[in-house]
Amino acid sequence: MNAPADNGPDLTLIGAFRHWTPVSLRFSDQDSMGHINNVSYAAYVEQARVAFLDDFLRVEGGGDIGYILASVNIDYRREMHFPGSVDIGSRLMRIGTKSITTAYGLFKDGENVATAGSVNVFYDAEAGKTVSIPDNLRKILEQELTKG
Amino acid sequence: MNAPADNGPDLTLIGAFRHWTPVSLRFSDQDSMGHINNVSYAAYVEQARVAFLDDFLRVEGGGDIGYILASVNIDYRREMHFPGSVDIGSRLMRIGTKSITTAYGLFKDGENVATAGSVNVFYDAEAGKTVSIPDNLRKILEQELTKG
Amino acid sequence: MNAPADNGPDLTLIGAFRHWTPVSLRFSDQDSMGHINNVSYAAYVEQARVAFLDDFLRVEGGGDIGYILASVNIDYRREMHFPGSVDIGSRLMRIGTKSITTAYGLFKDGENVATAGSVNVFYDAEAGKTVSIPDNLRKILEQELTKG
Amino acid sequence: MNAPADNGPDLTLIGAFRHWTPVSLRFSDQDSMGHINNVSYAAYVEQARVAFLDDFLRVEGGGDIGYILASVNIDYRREMHFPGSVDIGSRLMRIGTKSITTAYGLFKDGENVATAGSVNVFYDAEAGKTVSIPDNLRKILEQELTKG
Repeated sequence: MNAPADNGPDLTLIGAFRHWTPVSLRFSDQDSMGHINNVSYAAYVEQARVAFLDDFLRVEGGGDIGYILASVNIDYRREMHFPGSVDIGSRLMRIGTKSITTAYGLFKDGENVATAGSVNVFYDAEAGKTVSIPDNLRKILEQELTKG
Repeated sequence: MNAPADNGPDLTLIGAFRHWTPVSLRFSDQDSMGHINNVSYAAYVEQARVAFLDDFLRVEGGGDIGYILASVNIDYRREMHFPGSVDIGSRLMRIGTKSITTAYGLFKDGENVATAGSVNVFYDAEAGKTVSIPDNLRKILEQELTKG
Repeated sequence: MNAPADNGPDLTLIGAFRHWTPVSLRFSDQDSMGHINNVSYAAYVEQARVAFLDDFLRVEGGGDIGYILASVNIDYRREMHFPGSVDIGSRLMRIGTKSITTAYGLFKDGENVATAGSVNVFYDAEAGKTVSIPDNLRKILEQELTKG
Repeated sequence: MNAPADNGPDLTLIGAFRHWTPVSLRFSDQDSMGHINNVSYAAYVEQARVAFLDDFLRVEGGGDIGYILASVNIDYRREMHFPGSVDIGSRLMRIGTKSITTAYGLFKDGENVATAGSVNVFYDAEAGKTVSIPDNLRKILEQELTKG
């Protein structure tokens, strides 16, 4: 179901990720089923995505190029419960002309609870339109992709 | 406990309010106790506060004066459950030099579930400091206070 | 990107849906980009999913069979802003042995802002395992699928 | 405005607290004003309250007595921004017949951003009514109150 994982690394494994973001679970993240609500997983994925992408864009140095979120998909694999924290692994999956695909693995106490994918499109807010990935950023992204 | 109500109208009564804001309850608003989580009540109060204050500031016409939130207090009186919606009544309680106090009553299916109070301070974002309520806005607020 | 839509109806059109769920947008749904945060879209989709599935399960009458969420995917097509409400259209896309696939279209002021898909698996909470869709529920679901 | 602090310790000081709960800020906690939304502060306070009260009730060992939230008040003192985490200090303020009052200080990077108070009432869920604090728990609470 999780398209980005189809021909790639097994996102349910900790070893698939080099970049990690921890997020503390909140009591209010749990729903009436007594487990963490599915919507909160989307917030955890966002937390990891923002940290991961900001790392690249900070390196890049260009303040002009932003990115918008085109899609998110989440596969729920296990229930998760408060309290504690969730560790989200992030990795780059694909570099397009104007977009990048990233993938995520969510782990609680070392156990995979979900995997996710996301597509972001580069965007010139001033011009109000999507833009091709600039060459210097593309080089950095390609290097990252090589590292896996 | 709810200070603004001490010498004022009974905020648990529908009749105490002339301004109303409905908010749909969300499945994810419920917590593991099987009822709407207390944090969501703060979002409902904010929804009513923004609608209520924006009405005055829109009338006033001045785009320069903003307001910041100084305090919120909520008294939880009854459990509330998804699905459905909550109706929040809003009213002005007090006009200070730089601030206003507002009060709220939250009702589900005609039954009071919570009351709340809030203090907002007028603020000049450009100058980065709190400001006195301008005369034309004060007149509008005093009129509102008279109506009760 | 939105798999359920690939060979099916155009989920960006209001006409693709017969079941509707309105959800009021909240001030706190907006993020620092000044638009509704992507995580809130997941809450809107959940709102529609719960209303849609509960309709079928209520018809069915069986209190024993629950369902768990296996996956969610959301395609973000347009920015959305507070205030107002979002109308989510829901439809059944596919009936599996143990699971169903549903699809969603999110509209603000008649304009499509996102589409989404979801897979739910039927689950016997007492036995702690996934179960085949019971015959009487399957009949109801097949009827719904025919209506489109 | 923050009643519990009136004759007590200065809740804006780190030294007022011995119990601490860290919570990671989320990107989605920020609102369109570009700072952490006031509603999220209520979630941070809840996080600290649950951790603080559960500590006592765990010590107590009695599984029968729960507590419900009667009121929350929050004084907003400074803007707070993503990313990072907020540290919430918790302390017991008052022991009533059936209720306890707790107070909180929220700090980001060592700087106070908010203070809060809360009243919880002990509750027998099975009997469906509020109950007096049992003697063994009262002793533990009184000891805590002495420590300040």
